[in-house]
Amino acid sequence: MSAAYIDSERVEALSLANRGLAYGDGLFETMRVHRGTLPLWPRHLARLRDGAQRLGIGLPDPAFIEARIAEMSDGVDAGVLKLLLTRGDGGRGYAPPVDAPPAWMLAPHPLPPVPCAGLRLHACETRLAIQPALAGIKHCNRLEQVLARAEVERVGCDEGLMRDLEGRPVCATSANLLACRGDRWLTPPVARCGVAGVLRGWLLEQGLVEVAELAEDDVESADALALCNGVRGILPVSMLGARTWAAHPAITDLQARLAMAYPMFSNPVAGA
Amino acid sequence: MSAAYIDSERVEALSLANRGLAYGDGLFETMRVHRGTLPLWPRHLARLRDGAQRLGIGLPDPAFIEARIAEMSDGVDAGVLKLLLTRGDGGRGYAPPVDAPPAWMLAPHPLPPVPCAGLRLHACETRLAIQPALAGIKHCNRLEQVLARAEVERVGCDEGLMRDLEGRPVCATSANLLACRGDRWLTPPVARCGVAGVLRGWLLEQGLVEVAELAEDDVESADALALCNGVRGILPVSMLGARTWAAHPAITDLQARLAMAYPMFSNPVAGA
Repeated sequence: MSAAYIDSERVEALSLANRGLAYGDGLFETMRVHRGTLPLWPRHLARLRDGAQRLGIGLPDPAFIEARIAEMSDGVDAGVLKLLLTRGDGGRGYAPPVDAPPAWMLAPHPLPPVPCAGLRLHACETRLAIQPALAGIKHCNRLEQVLARAEVERVGCDEGLMRDLEGRPVCATSANLLACRGDRWLTPPVARCGVAGVLRGWLLEQGLVEVAELAEDDVESADALALCNGVRGILPVSMLGARTWAAHPAITDLQARLAMAYPMFSNPVAGA
Repeated sequence: MSAAYIDSERVEALSLANRGLAYGDGLFETMRVHRGTLPLWPRHLARLRDGAQRLGIGLPDPAFIEARIAEMSDGVDAGVLKLLLTRGDGGRGYAPPVDAPPAWMLAPHPLPPVPCAGLRLHACETRLAIQPALAGIKHCNRLEQVLARAEVERVGCDEGLMRDLEGRPVCATSANLLACRGDRWLTPPVARCGVAGVLRGWLLEQGLVEVAELAEDDVESADALALCNGVRGILPVSMLGARTWAAHPAITDLQARLAMAYPMFSNPVAGA
């Protein structure tokens, strides 16, 4: 059952004057729950804090948030918890309200099924606008992803490759992109658009993946392609348009390294 | 008092699973109420319909919406009514729910005071991303406007000039831009970013204003500058950075033509 709060006070519902509702004026985190805990929580909190700082949104007391998360995750063996933080209530107009307490919510969701084969990717027509002021953070202005995901549903694929307005591959609709070329795993930068995924961050810190600009050709000619996010871990891509990929040991290797640090991401699909 | 609806049913609150709240997955219209009616309603409805079509959001029965608007505007001599239309409720994830009834709301607001002098514009650092898929419609992904408006507040100006990522002037944070050069009124296109304002649409149809690309220099060297929207009509700009403008007969003339068609916009500020 979802729960809503104004700062540190439980409320029954969010107001119709909520700024998240009016303008997508908020941030969110979608977090894997494993045996009652959130193994990637520190990374989610760091990104949330960064987003709140960049947008000027107040952050409720993290200890209070953590206590509510603990209550909601208690007894959950495997699941997903979504945290949505909004700027709170405002009047009409874009001007951020002064000193409005942040309104936020937690919502539990089931863990999505692990796909039994590699992911079939649709090359989305919907592009990502280049907007450094909003890039990297997980804000709630997500119409591009909504339109792109609608494309994916229409063609019956599993996920979509999103390119920016200039044609550069950036990410999937809800995962970061990993391309294996030779003995290197590469992921596009997220300084112009895209989200700095928490698992992407871990892979970069571990030196398992490097940031690199990728052209469309680089993706199509990659030895292996995978997607990663903090809910499903690392999943292989088996198809993008006419291009197909067979199982590749570089993916199995990357998955194994992740599973050593985060066992809840073990036992994934090894390849296509 | 605000009122919320799921399709044609009144509800007490919007759900925490509302897609507008999650992703800014919605559209809005901010409408001038004059003597119990909305003189620009057909234009607002047309833009709402266009936006709903482009985003694939269901539109409630317009007759039902109009009846609720009439109730809420009854007895209001001068005010503002905001209509917010969202895709309705969804589960986790960007995929638009199939057949979710649209959730929407109406909220009355006071008419903002007419400024007693020309508007002082701040040249916002926050840029508008170029995104043709979302340009023109009044969707709820408005973080750019929120950040830009926060800049305006910080410097104590009245409004902000927004440029796109390539530096072209497009609009203000909540109004369209009108630049008078010689005997022509020009307004930037909104095919790449920006909103197709309802009053801008009327001015274009009347042949009083033309669409033209404007460079920053074109704005600074304009003979007169004004902003327009469906709530406050046409307002003169008196300042943009170091540049100032005195009252100009071209603005008075444009205001007078508007007031002939829409008398509620009469008696505005004539100049700086």
